[in-house]
Amino acid sequence: MLNGEKIISRPLRWAMVGGGRLSQVGYKHRTGALRDNTAFRLTAGAFDIDAERGKDFGMNLGVSAERCYPDYQTMFAEEAKRDDGIEVVSIATPNRTHYEICKAALEADLHVTCEKPLFFTSEEGYEIKALAEEKGKVIGVTYGFSGNQMLLQMRAMIEQGQIGDIRVVDLQYTHGFSATDEVEKTSDAQKWRVDPAIAGPSFVLGDLSTHTYYMSQLIMPHIKIKELLCDRQSFVKNRAPLEDNAYVLMHYENGAVGTMWTSSINAGCMDGHRIRIVGSKASLEWWDSKPNELTYEVQGEPIQTLVRAMPYLDSRCNADERLGALHTEGLSEAWANIYLKFAIAIDAKNRGDEETLKSLVYPDIDAGIEGMRWVENCVRSAGQGSVWVDFQ
Amino acid sequence: MLNGEKIISRPLRWAMVGGGRLSQVGYKHRTGALRDNTAFRLTAGAFDIDAERGKDFGMNLGVSAERCYPDYQTMFAEEAKRDDGIEVVSIATPNRTHYEICKAALEADLHVTCEKPLFFTSEEGYEIKALAEEKGKVIGVTYGFSGNQMLLQMRAMIEQGQIGDIRVVDLQYTHGFSATDEVEKTSDAQKWRVDPAIAGPSFVLGDLSTHTYYMSQLIMPHIKIKELLCDRQSFVKNRAPLEDNAYVLMHYENGAVGTMWTSSINAGCMDGHRIRIVGSKASLEWWDSKPNELTYEVQGEPIQTLVRAMPYLDSRCNADERLGALHTEGLSEAWANIYLKFAIAIDAKNRGDEETLKSLVYPDIDAGIEGMRWVENCVRSAGQGSVWVDFQ
Amino acid sequence: MLNGEKIISRPLRWAMVGGGRLSQVGYKHRTGALRDNTAFRLTAGAFDIDAERGKDFGMNLGVSAERCYPDYQTMFAEEAKRDDGIEVVSIATPNRTHYEICKAALEADLHVTCEKPLFFTSEEGYEIKALAEEKGKVIGVTYGFSGNQMLLQMRAMIEQGQIGDIRVVDLQYTHGFSATDEVEKTSDAQKWRVDPAIAGPSFVLGDLSTHTYYMSQLIMPHIKIKELLCDRQSFVKNRAPLEDNAYVLMHYENGAVGTMWTSSINAGCMDGHRIRIVGSKASLEWWDSKPNELTYEVQGEPIQTLVRAMPYLDSRCNADERLGALHTEGLSEAWANIYLKFAIAIDAKNRGDEETLKSLVYPDIDAGIEGMRWVENCVRSAGQGSVWVDFQ
Amino acid sequence: MLNGEKIISRPLRWAMVGGGRLSQVGYKHRTGALRDNTAFRLTAGAFDIDAERGKDFGMNLGVSAERCYPDYQTMFAEEAKRDDGIEVVSIATPNRTHYEICKAALEADLHVTCEKPLFFTSEEGYEIKALAEEKGKVIGVTYGFSGNQMLLQMRAMIEQGQIGDIRVVDLQYTHGFSATDEVEKTSDAQKWRVDPAIAGPSFVLGDLSTHTYYMSQLIMPHIKIKELLCDRQSFVKNRAPLEDNAYVLMHYENGAVGTMWTSSINAGCMDGHRIRIVGSKASLEWWDSKPNELTYEVQGEPIQTLVRAMPYLDSRCNADERLGALHTEGLSEAWANIYLKFAIAIDAKNRGDEETLKSLVYPDIDAGIEGMRWVENCVRSAGQGSVWVDFQ
Repeated sequence: MLNGEKIISRPLRWAMVGGGRLSQVGYKHRTGALRDNTAFRLTAGAFDIDAERGKDFGMNLGVSAERCYPDYQTMFAEEAKRDDGIEVVSIATPNRTHYEICKAALEADLHVTCEKPLFFTSEEGYEIKALAEEKGKVIGVTYGFSGNQMLLQMRAMIEQGQIGDIRVVDLQYTHGFSATDEVEKTSDAQKWRVDPAIAGPSFVLGDLSTHTYYMSQLIMPHIKIKELLCDRQSFVKNRAPLEDNAYVLMHYENGAVGTMWTSSINAGCMDGHRIRIVGSKASLEWWDSKPNELTYEVQGEPIQTLVRAMPYLDSRCNADERLGALHTEGLSEAWANIYLKFAIAIDAKNRGDEETLKSLVYPDIDAGIEGMRWVENCVRSAGQGSVWVDFQ
Repeated sequence: MLNGEKIISRPLRWAMVGGGRLSQVGYKHRTGALRDNTAFRLTAGAFDIDAERGKDFGMNLGVSAERCYPDYQTMFAEEAKRDDGIEVVSIATPNRTHYEICKAALEADLHVTCEKPLFFTSEEGYEIKALAEEKGKVIGVTYGFSGNQMLLQMRAMIEQGQIGDIRVVDLQYTHGFSATDEVEKTSDAQKWRVDPAIAGPSFVLGDLSTHTYYMSQLIMPHIKIKELLCDRQSFVKNRAPLEDNAYVLMHYENGAVGTMWTSSINAGCMDGHRIRIVGSKASLEWWDSKPNELTYEVQGEPIQTLVRAMPYLDSRCNADERLGALHTEGLSEAWANIYLKFAIAIDAKNRGDEETLKSLVYPDIDAGIEGMRWVENCVRSAGQGSVWVDFQ
Repeated sequence: MLNGEKIISRPLRWAMVGGGRLSQVGYKHRTGALRDNTAFRLTAGAFDIDAERGKDFGMNLGVSAERCYPDYQTMFAEEAKRDDGIEVVSIATPNRTHYEICKAALEADLHVTCEKPLFFTSEEGYEIKALAEEKGKVIGVTYGFSGNQMLLQMRAMIEQGQIGDIRVVDLQYTHGFSATDEVEKTSDAQKWRVDPAIAGPSFVLGDLSTHTYYMSQLIMPHIKIKELLCDRQSFVKNRAPLEDNAYVLMHYENGAVGTMWTSSINAGCMDGHRIRIVGSKASLEWWDSKPNELTYEVQGEPIQTLVRAMPYLDSRCNADERLGALHTEGLSEAWANIYLKFAIAIDAKNRGDEETLKSLVYPDIDAGIEGMRWVENCVRSAGQGSVWVDFQ
Repeated sequence: MLNGEKIISRPLRWAMVGGGRLSQVGYKHRTGALRDNTAFRLTAGAFDIDAERGKDFGMNLGVSAERCYPDYQTMFAEEAKRDDGIEVVSIATPNRTHYEICKAALEADLHVTCEKPLFFTSEEGYEIKALAEEKGKVIGVTYGFSGNQMLLQMRAMIEQGQIGDIRVVDLQYTHGFSATDEVEKTSDAQKWRVDPAIAGPSFVLGDLSTHTYYMSQLIMPHIKIKELLCDRQSFVKNRAPLEDNAYVLMHYENGAVGTMWTSSINAGCMDGHRIRIVGSKASLEWWDSKPNELTYEVQGEPIQTLVRAMPYLDSRCNADERLGALHTEGLSEAWANIYLKFAIAIDAKNRGDEETLKSLVYPDIDAGIEGMRWVENCVRSAGQGSVWVDFQ
C-alpha cells in the first residue's frame, strides 16, 4: 500500500517536452509523476511549440521562468550546465518527434519517459535501446492504463494457474470520438493523429491498441504471438491510409488464439476498453471503465467480482493500492503507479542496482519496441490484403 | 400487444418429432407453440428414439396414447389416415436427421418447423425449398432467440436511419459449458453435437452462431456479406475437425465490416450472446442476458437504455409485447413469438394469402438456407487456412 | 426441473372472473395457469363486466360460447349443474369484489385463486379462511413475482445459515408510472386503484408492497415483525387518503430491522423492485429486473453472482427450473410456478393428502391474510401520525 | 477543465495535524491538497501522536526535519515565529480533538480544514464559526466525496427544473466492514470510532451519513428538513450506545420526504453509497462506486446515462473536470476539487474578496455545523424512542 512516503532517496529533477496547455496528455504525465512529490519534482520544461505560451504555462505550474525553455534543444543544453540540472525528461509530443527528442535526451545523459507509440519503427527502437544501454539510462513508455493494479491481480492469478491454460485472448480498445472527421477539423490535439507524416504508419492501432497489447503482455508475460492477421479500414475516407478501425486475429505460440478490436469510430461507445482472458477452466475480465473491479468466472461456479484493495487480492496487486477499499481509484492512480516505477527504475539504474531492475515490472524500452512490432506486423498484414503473417 | 386471443381462426394440429424427456430443446418448442393454445394444439408425437419412453412422455403431456408414435414414419402414415390428422410437425432431433424427416413431412403434406442448423448443406436446403413450394407448405426454422422483440426495435431504428450508415457488426455467441469434454461424456443431449456424422460440418458455428447470424440479418435485412474469413479451433482435441471456438471476420457489400465470435469454451461466461451494430452516428447493442433492454448510444449524447414495452418503442416492436412494462419477458416469450408467426404463415399459406406471407417477418426456409451458407463459407475459409473467401 | 409433464393426474377445469381484454393482469393468470396444459384447462369464464365483450374475448381464447358467462353468479350456478363443471376459479377483478366473489366461489364448492390484496380487512380473511376449511377448498393468492425461483435459493441459503443471523431487511417495490394523475385519467385499469371505495384502504401499500412483503416472508419464514412505523404520502393530491408513496420501518422479533419503500411516483424508475437481506456475515440481494441472478456478498470475500439453473444451486430452487442455464426466464415462469403449486395444492386437497399440503410452499390464504395485516398495520401507523405500532 | 495551472497566485503553506503513517485518511488529504502543487505546499506537520514516528513520516514526505513537530501546540507556536510560517492547517485526528485543535489554530491565526464530523455539538460549531469570523479565517470541512463533479451536474439539473419538483430524497451510505467487532479489535484507526468519549455521540451517523447528508444539501440547496425520525441499532452489542446501523426518515419543508440508511454492518456491500433524487417528472441517481456516471430517468422516456467530461454536461460540472472523457476519475480527484476550493476560499479571504467567497460552493463551517445538527437531531429522535422531532 502506498501513502506517499518516499521510496527512493530523493525526488528526481524532471522536465517535460510538450504536454502544454492544449495537450490532452500532458496533465496525465504531471499528475502521475508528481502524485506524492517523493518521486519526481517538476524542474524545467519545453512545454509548447509556442514558446511564449509554453513559458506562461510552465510558470503557472510553478516552474521558474528561466527554466521554461523555448525548445528541447535549448533545455537540454542549458540544464546540462547546471549542478541541479534535470535528470529525466518526459516526451509528450506528436509521434514523429519522439525518436529525435529521445535520442537527444539520451545524448544529454538524461533518463527518458516517452509517449506511445514510441517511434515509427522497431528499427529505431532497437537503435535507441542500444544507445540507452550505452548511456546507462532508463527509457519508460507511458502506457498509462497499465498502471491499473487489478491487471497485476490478473497476472498473479494467471501465473498461479487459477484459470488453467490460456486459450482465448479477447482485447478491445475502441471509442467513437472520431466517428466523423469533425474532431480533427476542430482539435489540433487530434489533427496530427491522422496525418501519417506525423502520426506514423497507423492511427488507432498505434494510438489505442498498443496500450491494450502491452497490458495483455503484462498479464500474460509467458504468451507470445506466432502469427497474426489484421484487417483495417478508414471509414472516414480522407484518413486513409491510416485506419480508424481494425480487427486483428492472433495465433499464439502455445496454441491460444486472440482478437483485438480497435476503433475510434465505435459511435457512442463509452466503455470500449477491456481485456478478457479465457483459460481452460476459468476466465478473467477487466474493463477500463470499471477499473476497481475484476471478474473471475470459473466454469460451473458462481461469478466472482473481485474488488480493489481487498485483503484477498494478491500482495503484488495490493502493493500499488493507495486509497483503501470502497474508495474508487481511477486513471490518475494508474499513471502515478507507472511513474513511481519509472522513478524506482531510474534510481536503481543510477545506483547500479541490477536486482531491482530485473524484478521491477514496468513498461520499459522493450515494451515500447514491442508496441512498434505490433503495429508493424498489423500494418504489414493489412497491406498484403489482410492475410496471416508471421510475427516478426 | 398480445394477450392470447386468437389470431388465426383455430389452432393448428401440431406434432413433434423428437423433443422428448431428455431433450434440452423440446420444452422450448412446446412452450413456444402452446403459449396461448390459440395457435397450435399438441396432437401427436414421435417424441423419442426410445418408443416406450416417448409414449409415456407424450401421454404425460396430454397426448392420447394412440397418437404417441414409435417413429415419425408411422406417425406421418397414421395421421394421414385421420380426418383430424396433424397439419404441422416440429423437428427437434439431432442435425443429421433433419433433412430426411423434413422431406418426409412435406411428402406427407405437412407444414414443418425445424431446428437449426437446418440441414448439412445449402444444396439440401434448396432442394427442400423447392419441394415445399411444390407442396404449398411453410418451413419455419426455430431460431428461438430471434423472437426477442427488442430485435425488432433495432430493425426499426436502423431502417429509420437512427444510427446512420452501418459500419461495424459485432456479433458474439459464446458460453463455456464445453470447456472440457466432460459434458459430452455425461450428456447424450450433448454428445452428438461434436460427432460430424450426426452434427454435420461444424459444432459451435452451426449450433450457436447460426442464431446470431440470423438475428443480424433480421435487424439489417439490407446488408449482405461479400466475403468472410473464418479461423476455427478445437481446444478439446478430440472434437476435431469440429470446432469449439471460432472467429469470423466479415466484409459486407456496403463497406461495413463485422466479426463473429462463437465458442463453447468461453469458460465461466454466462452472458456471451450479444449484438452490437455501429453506425456512422450511433450504435445499438443488445444482450441476450438482458433481453428487455436495448442500448442506444449516439456519439456525443447521453447513453440511452430503451426498455421493453414502453410507448416510445416502435409499434412493430410492441406488437409482440405480452406482459407490460416493468415485467420481464424471457426466452419463452421469444419462442412464443416465433411460433405465433409460424402459425400465421401456415394459416396464410393454407388460405393462399400471399400478402400476409410477403410482409410477415419470421425465420423461414430462406433463413435456414442462409444459416447453412454461413456455415459452409466459414468451414471453407477455415479449411483453406483461414483465408478470405467470397460469400457464396 | 420442469418440462411440462403432468404432476397431477389430469388438468383441473378452471375459470376466470375478470381478466378480460382490457385487464392488465388477466393474461398473466392465463399464461401462468395454462403454461403446460397439464395443470389447468381454461373451461369457462365471466371475463368482463361488459358481458358481450367478455363473451367475444372468451371465445377468442377457445372457451366455448355457452361457457362464457355474463357474470360470476351465473357461471357458478350453471357450471354447478354440469358433470364437467369448473373446479377452480381465479378472481382477477378490482379489489372491492374479491371478498364477495371468493365467498360465492367457496359456497359453490370451488377452489379459488385470487388477486392481491386479497380483501379489504384481515377480518374478512379469517372469515373466508374458516369457510374454505369448512368447504375443504384451497385459496391461492397470486403473488406472481414470488414464483421466481431464485427466491427459493435465498430461502435455502438463509435456512442453511449462509448469511448468519438476519439483521437488516431492505425491501423496495417502486415505479414511476403514476408520477402524474394522467394514468388514472386515461386508463380504466388504473383508475379504480386510487378510489378507496374500490381499492380499499391503500394504493401502493396494497398494490405493490404486499408482493414484496410476501416474498420477504417466503425467504425468511422464521422472522416475524414485532412493530412497525409507516409514513405515507399522496404526492398527487387528489389521491388522498390513498398513498402513492410510503416508507415503512420494521422491528422484527429477533432484533432485526427492516425498511420497505413502496411508490408509484418514483419517476423514471424501471428497476425498483428488489430485496436485500443482510445477515451477520453475508448478504443476499435479488432484483426483479434481473430475476435470473442472485448476488451473494460475504463480508471480506469476492462478490458472488449466482445464476439461475446452475447445478450449484439448491435443489429446491432448481426444482422450478424450466429452460436451462443461459436461457432467461421471466415473469411468465414465475406465474407458471405459482399456478403449478396451486394445482398441486388443490389436487392434494381433493385427495386428502395432508402431507403434501404441509410441505408445499406457496402463497395460500394465510399469505393473503398476512398481506392485509401488513396493510392494516401500515395504515394504522400512518393514521396515528406515522408512529410505531405493535404488529397485530 | 483543470490542468494544474495555478488558480491562486502562489501555493499556501500548509501543515497537517494527524494523518500520519497509520491514518486511513491522511493520504487522502495530501493527495487532495497537493494534487497540482499550485494550491498548497506541505510545509510542516504534527503527524502522529507518536512524535518520533511522526517525524520520520514527515521527513519521508519531504518535510524538513525541524518542521516535523511533536504536537500541534508546538507547531503553532514555532511556525508563528517564522516569516515563512504555515498559513493553513488540516486536522485529521480523532473526532474528540477537532474542537480544541481548531480553536488553537484559529487563535494562531491559521486557516483550517477539518475532518468530519466537525465537532461533538453544533454549539461548539457556532462558537468556532464566530471565532473564525473574528479572525478572518476560513474553515473547510473535508466532505471528500462531495468533490465528485457529477454532483454539480445534479445540482445544475435540479436548479434548471429538469426533474420537476423534488418529492423523494433517497440516501444511503453503508458498508459491511464492521459486521463483526474484529475490525475495532485489530485496527487502532477504527477502535476509537466506537468509543463515545473519542468519537462523540454517534458512530455511523457521524462517520458516514454526514457525508451523504452534505452531498444532498449540495445538490438541493433550496430544500430544508422540517422534521425527522431516526431509528438506530447496535448490532455488535458492545458498541452501544453508538450505532452501527440507522435509518432516518425526513420530512422536508417543501413537502418532500426522504430516507437515509447508514450502516457499517451491511455485510459484503461494496457499493452502498448512493443518492437518488426523485422529482415530479424525472429522477437523478448517482453511485459513489461509479462516480463518472449519472443516471437521469425521465418518466416515460429511455433511461439516460450521463458520463463525466462530456460536452453536454453543465459548465459548472465540467469546470472541475481533469482527465477528459473516457478516462475514469475517482476519489482522489474529488478530494483535489475540494482542496482546490479551500485554497480559493482562503486566498479570497486573505484578499478580502467577498464576491468570490459568496459564489464559491464548497463545504464550509456552515456545512460542518449542519452535519452536527443532523447528528444531534438523529440522536435526539432515537433517544426519545425513534419518534418524529422538529429539525432544530
